[in-house]
Amino acid sequence: MNKGKGPTLGDVGEFGFIKRVREAMKTSDPSILQGIGDDAAIFKPSAGCEMVFTTDMLVEGRHFDFKFTTPWQLGAKTMAVNISDCSAMGAKPTVAVVSIGMPASFPMADLEAFYDGLKSWGESYGAQIVGGDTVGSDKFVVNLALIGEVEKGNALKRSTAKVGDALLVTGSLGDSAAGLFALQHPSKKGEETAPLLVKRHLTPVPRFNVGRVLSTNKLATSAIDISDGLSSEVHHLCEESGVGAEVHEEAIPLSDSLRHYCEMNQLDPLAFALHGGEDYELLFTVPVSRIGEALRNTPGETGVGVRSIGRMVSKAKGVTLIKKDGKRVPLTAKGFDHFSKPGK
Amino acid sequence: MNKGKGPTLGDVGEFGFIKRVREAMKTSDPSILQGIGDDAAIFKPSAGCEMVFTTDMLVEGRHFDFKFTTPWQLGAKTMAVNISDCSAMGAKPTVAVVSIGMPASFPMADLEAFYDGLKSWGESYGAQIVGGDTVGSDKFVVNLALIGEVEKGNALKRSTAKVGDALLVTGSLGDSAAGLFALQHPSKKGEETAPLLVKRHLTPVPRFNVGRVLSTNKLATSAIDISDGLSSEVHHLCEESGVGAEVHEEAIPLSDSLRHYCEMNQLDPLAFALHGGEDYELLFTVPVSRIGEALRNTPGETGVGVRSIGRMVSKAKGVTLIKKDGKRVPLTAKGFDHFSKPGK
Repeated sequence: MNKGKGPTLGDVGEFGFIKRVREAMKTSDPSILQGIGDDAAIFKPSAGCEMVFTTDMLVEGRHFDFKFTTPWQLGAKTMAVNISDCSAMGAKPTVAVVSIGMPASFPMADLEAFYDGLKSWGESYGAQIVGGDTVGSDKFVVNLALIGEVEKGNALKRSTAKVGDALLVTGSLGDSAAGLFALQHPSKKGEETAPLLVKRHLTPVPRFNVGRVLSTNKLATSAIDISDGLSSEVHHLCEESGVGAEVHEEAIPLSDSLRHYCEMNQLDPLAFALHGGEDYELLFTVPVSRIGEALRNTPGETGVGVRSIGRMVSKAKGVTLIKKDGKRVPLTAKGFDHFSKPGK
Repeated sequence: MNKGKGPTLGDVGEFGFIKRVREAMKTSDPSILQGIGDDAAIFKPSAGCEMVFTTDMLVEGRHFDFKFTTPWQLGAKTMAVNISDCSAMGAKPTVAVVSIGMPASFPMADLEAFYDGLKSWGESYGAQIVGGDTVGSDKFVVNLALIGEVEKGNALKRSTAKVGDALLVTGSLGDSAAGLFALQHPSKKGEETAPLLVKRHLTPVPRFNVGRVLSTNKLATSAIDISDGLSSEVHHLCEESGVGAEVHEEAIPLSDSLRHYCEMNQLDPLAFALHGGEDYELLFTVPVSRIGEALRNTPGETGVGVRSIGRMVSKAKGVTLIKKDGKRVPLTAKGFDHFSKPGK
């Protein structure tokens, strides 16, 4: 943060600020007929597509802390978490509007860095900022609303997993939660691997390409992104689809960085992987007949590893974790609930 | 507010709450393929339409105060201010996503009333809540992002007013600002008219029908909604269109309630009308040849009064207020800036 250095938002004023953002966010995309600068943006939807629409709000002191994140990283993450939702639908992001609440004392340099992070991560995945709102607030709060498009009938839902389908997951789980732990416990060991985990927490990479491969090839029968932790998301998938699931503990993908960091500090990597959250990996199901295709072609086309971690069973069987020793235990959802009371 | 009465959000938890909202927001609209309950909503855009996209954030203590507004009214207003933006583009609202930040101690009854206000005002204008985000926050903060659609090429912009066009405005100006003043000064006189002004402040009515008449008949050459006060919005219209304007003070529409309340308290109704803000009336331009049509047909089709208050002139002539005595003075923009320093 640039507290005390250079002009603040209050020095520039709301309209001066909007003028700057508008200049920075200029676009020559012919599908955008009106960007920032009117009561609303105007854009043309692509023929033969359905639209997806998602939103995420991030509040200072709850979702992020300027002690840990730079404004640029926060901008990138704000965009990434919304693109992750879009990717979980198999859609391409197109246009976004962003609302920011902040105090007048907020440094302009930081605000510009925030927008720069937002813009560069958006552009990497085809999303453009076409409007927004800027208001006063004691704490920094940001909301992004993102529209995407997906070929007619190809959107990936949570509610369409079938009994017998294989359950797959991208990348590795638990890194982000361990990265947050490392930020909050700077005196812990593991300085070789902590920065890699922290990076995954501060600037998550949405699984855009995987989502597109799954939807355009009609490969996945269902999909969800992992924002609240694997255990919670498996339950969401099961509840929406009216099925149960078996997850093999041993198959859960853990990165070498997570294993090393946890070993150095006598922590359980599985606890981070199962219940940690903010991984922004994709959890999805494929018909058994297409597991090979999913495991070979998806990484081949996207460069992102994919692992089969279990299968969908009947609802009556519930959601089970099969431990390394073969013991079966109920997999309880322990992901993040913004409002649950401690011990509840 | 129901502080201390009944269960709080923390008692119900994030997922329990989402379940309730989802039930309340169920829709049978065939264009909505997936509402609340997935990573993103899915909807079909209408053929031959362009989309508009807008967002507004409201922060407790900055935009509203639970001393003055009920949660239901706040929900209605959150929807209304976004629909007003949509109407200023001549578009029909279709789908919205809503993000709310609030403390776990927030009473469930109030939260449900908020959603009820949001829903009933949305439904009145064809807007449906299809998704959102709920997060923890010390203060209540809400963000709505709204999509609308408008027939191809018919969207009303701020940037297309022409020199010579007549400048028109709907309804009456200053009521909302005077209503806020009345709330903040309960010991003032005027108890017969203050409630009418307060109502316009707490539950503004977006000029949806007027916007549709202006766009479908290709009647307006430009339009903007009045959220920051007439003086500011005239300047926005002029800047975007590269023109100047003359506004006749005498023509500015003032309600009888405003006149009466100001008379009782020795206040200047014109100060509220020119610089007050939050009117959510439409300010628009029409070619001189179509003034008659605008003044007769628009009220006839919508039931909302329309008044000609001036005309667009060359940019070099600037923005002028013609006083009752014929004196010409520059019309300075004194609308609300969220971040400007006092006296700046």
